[in-house]
Amino acid sequence: MFTDTTTIRVRYAETDQMGVVYHSHYLVYFEVARGDAVRHSGLTYADLEKKGVIMPIVEINCRYLRPARYDNLLTIKTFLKEMPTDHKITFHHEVYNEQNELLTTAKVILYFMDAPKMKPVKMPEVWAKKLEAYFNSPA
Amino acid sequence: MFTDTTTIRVRYAETDQMGVVYHSHYLVYFEVARGDAVRHSGLTYADLEKKGVIMPIVEINCRYLRPARYDNLLTIKTFLKEMPTDHKITFHHEVYNEQNELLTTAKVILYFMDAPKMKPVKMPEVWAKKLEAYFNSPA
Amino acid sequence: MFTDTTTIRVRYAETDQMGVVYHSHYLVYFEVARGDAVRHSGLTYADLEKKGVIMPIVEINCRYLRPARYDNLLTIKTFLKEMPTDHKITFHHEVYNEQNELLTTAKVILYFMDAPKMKPVKMPEVWAKKLEAYFNSPA
Amino acid sequence: MFTDTTTIRVRYAETDQMGVVYHSHYLVYFEVARGDAVRHSGLTYADLEKKGVIMPIVEINCRYLRPARYDNLLTIKTFLKEMPTDHKITFHHEVYNEQNELLTTAKVILYFMDAPKMKPVKMPEVWAKKLEAYFNSPA
Repeated sequence: MFTDTTTIRVRYAETDQMGVVYHSHYLVYFEVARGDAVRHSGLTYADLEKKGVIMPIVEINCRYLRPARYDNLLTIKTFLKEMPTDHKITFHHEVYNEQNELLTTAKVILYFMDAPKMKPVKMPEVWAKKLEAYFNSPA
Repeated sequence: MFTDTTTIRVRYAETDQMGVVYHSHYLVYFEVARGDAVRHSGLTYADLEKKGVIMPIVEINCRYLRPARYDNLLTIKTFLKEMPTDHKITFHHEVYNEQNELLTTAKVILYFMDAPKMKPVKMPEVWAKKLEAYFNSPA
Repeated sequence: MFTDTTTIRVRYAETDQMGVVYHSHYLVYFEVARGDAVRHSGLTYADLEKKGVIMPIVEINCRYLRPARYDNLLTIKTFLKEMPTDHKITFHHEVYNEQNELLTTAKVILYFMDAPKMKPVKMPEVWAKKLEAYFNSPA
Repeated sequence: MFTDTTTIRVRYAETDQMGVVYHSHYLVYFEVARGDAVRHSGLTYADLEKKGVIMPIVEINCRYLRPARYDNLLTIKTFLKEMPTDHKITFHHEVYNEQNELLTTAKVILYFMDAPKMKPVKMPEVWAKKLEAYFNSPA
């Protein structure tokens, strides 16, 4: 399994009049967390995109357990439980506050797409090679 | 069943560098659609909130089938398939473009909360009464 | 002078924990208002962009006089006080609430840019022709 | 003079279909930079707000010189050129990219407000004391 951790401090702009983070902003936090996960595995999503691979989101399931508030320093844990074998990749995310309370969980499914052709493709080789070490178990 | 329809024109700010609506903005569109659905049933969400009832989101499931683009006039259909019997309410949403293609579907679950006490409560009577007509079938 | 009016209902996502519209969202409202102003003059900004003209913003001056709140139906008045003679265009905006109180004023300066070449250009002919009627005074 | 520096990595959600950061997001970056500036002077804006002082924005002047792009690591420099003497405080911001090119400059004026009374007040003592050292010149 590949796991990664990133921290995000809640911005004032992300609160709403309930005094908590408006629910759509977690999807942005997850995207930041995936970007960091790619970076920490040794390349960048910006690089992938320059090579013509885009990753549109096809499905999101998100559960909101507790609210986050302005200036909270959130920890986002990101999990890749299995190597993608086709044109899909599934991330799991968990958001924790500074008291280590679980605030939000999510499953996010993205496609690998060849941007010029707008066709589904397999995971780019350059990224797959970086990730293999996390999934290859000894014989 | 209670159904409602609202239209939203895609703003430039809602596009991303893929040239399509960034996925988190649909959650905002759904909230606008629910606000209109409440308004069209004869009250406003702002009124409910002034009475001390807030509706935090507890779960979202969203599928992205086709992209929306800048200046598209989207139609959001909102469905309430059953009267809430406890402190939860479940909305279904469908987003269509001007060619009547289905772009996105979602299920959104919210809680009714007493804001001062932060306790789950039942659907406010004033709203329940407005909705009953849509669910009461003749004997 | 060219003037235009558009209405925008404040979304929940646009409020912050002060209970008012977060200040950056007015810039989005102004962009919606300019888009409507272009549409009402007989073409669309999306069309201009397809012709290879983009309009990046180069300067914004904005004064916040009174707050807007959730569900407020805002009226945005947009003014083009003179025909652009070079590669710049200057819009003025005023935001009013339902009590006709002035909430916000702004001056927004944009460039006309040839997108493929990324060079400043003059206002597209197709739009200039639509606007001339508003500025040509009889001799 | 009080100066502070913060870094912000551009999120995918903050780009638009021009492929650059949408202009309204800089206002959010400035707010993050001010929050960090307050933190680095030894307290937090969240603390100030808990003490009943809010700081609504009354004026923004912003110039956009060069675009920022996805994944750019931006440096925001924040300047407080003089101690506030009445109920206003004026911040200056400069945004630089990794090539040290100046992208954006801004002047942002905020009010100190007593939140319960919604009346302008002076800068909170606790913050003024922290800042004095930056402005007191030797005799």
